[in-house]
Amino acid sequence: MRKQILNFGIVLSGCGNKDGAEIHESVLTLLAIDRAGSKYQCFAPDIDQYQVIDFLTGEKMDETRNVLRESARIARGDIKPLSEYDATQFDALILPGGFGAALNLSTFGVDGENMSVNADVERAVRAMVEHNKPIGALCIAPVILGKLLGDVKITFGQDEKVNAVFQKMGASTENTSHGGIVVDQKYKLVTTPCYMLPASISDVATGAENLVKAIMEML
Amino acid sequence: MRKQILNFGIVLSGCGNKDGAEIHESVLTLLAIDRAGSKYQCFAPDIDQYQVIDFLTGEKMDETRNVLRESARIARGDIKPLSEYDATQFDALILPGGFGAALNLSTFGVDGENMSVNADVERAVRAMVEHNKPIGALCIAPVILGKLLGDVKITFGQDEKVNAVFQKMGASTENTSHGGIVVDQKYKLVTTPCYMLPASISDVATGAENLVKAIMEML
Repeated sequence: MRKQILNFGIVLSGCGNKDGAEIHESVLTLLAIDRAGSKYQCFAPDIDQYQVIDFLTGEKMDETRNVLRESARIARGDIKPLSEYDATQFDALILPGGFGAALNLSTFGVDGENMSVNADVERAVRAMVEHNKPIGALCIAPVILGKLLGDVKITFGQDEKVNAVFQKMGASTENTSHGGIVVDQKYKLVTTPCYMLPASISDVATGAENLVKAIMEML
Repeated sequence: MRKQILNFGIVLSGCGNKDGAEIHESVLTLLAIDRAGSKYQCFAPDIDQYQVIDFLTGEKMDETRNVLRESARIARGDIKPLSEYDATQFDALILPGGFGAALNLSTFGVDGENMSVNADVERAVRAMVEHNKPIGALCIAPVILGKLLGDVKITFGQDEKVNAVFQKMGASTENTSHGGIVVDQKYKLVTTPCYMLPASISDVATGAENLVKAIMEML
């Protein structure tokens, strides 16, 4: 490892797995970083959420919420607009999952293979690749890496439907079980399935720990 | 320990520390329970939040949110109204902190020593005490135990102002540092300071782990 205290940028996408960032994946990523003795700064795009879901019924609510403002709940207020992300200030970038990654950070959840990626997210990811710095992505968030980079090696757990979409874009997908990670040495990517599988919260913690450890070993 | 797999009831109070349940404390309590091989079921009162805060500015928003619906974000939809809580079905009850404990589960944040406690919360807590079953409370949530039970032994970290209020009500307050717990053998209470102190997320995880461990040792 290059140095002991690393700086991680975290891209959140709201607050709650059905319309924003998956809360357990986000919190357990922050915990894994802190327990490894490193630091984090949360970011999120300053845009409206694609939708607001009633988590009791699963139905859409007639409400508008802002991705940055809701993400700030997970970050206890300590968060910055993703437009301010400067890749030179961070050693690694991590994108937790949840539908926010597929509806707010990208449009995969609506457009499938015709998806687009939010401009701030694209800029942050491309800057890390240009600087040869690692990127981690949990759960469904690897769709962003697949779309932007093409010939990546990533995991979506055991979801053959999602695998097929990104194989068509040039990705090599590897199936994983609870806590498993897939490492792409070319682009310096680490991905882990978390709630892409019917996981327990402990499985998610193990996945986040393994992802953070693999990233730190790259540095 | 009486048996290996214990059932924990968790009382959430919204989703976010400034107007609801503290997210890290809630998630890390669930993780500690799961990693200890036990089970949990989340509950929350089906009431409107006292307020909705913009986590970017700290200002009140002109919005209404429901405590049960927002708590469901932390529970990934798997949550029940607290009115359905049946103490005979659970081995222990845990109340994470956040302003939700002081504004939604009780009125301590507004009324101080003249506080009242939500009727569903009071019923759940009193039922556990009647059944001689343990209760854990994190951060500011011990205010509920102090108000309802009086002569308790609890901790609010090192907050002398809050200590003084509950000492007047008959409590014995013990100062604690990061990860510390206070055990009340009479009422079977375990409390830990978490974000009552300027804690890191790892400190909160350690506090939640120590609290769950102490509860399991009581059973």
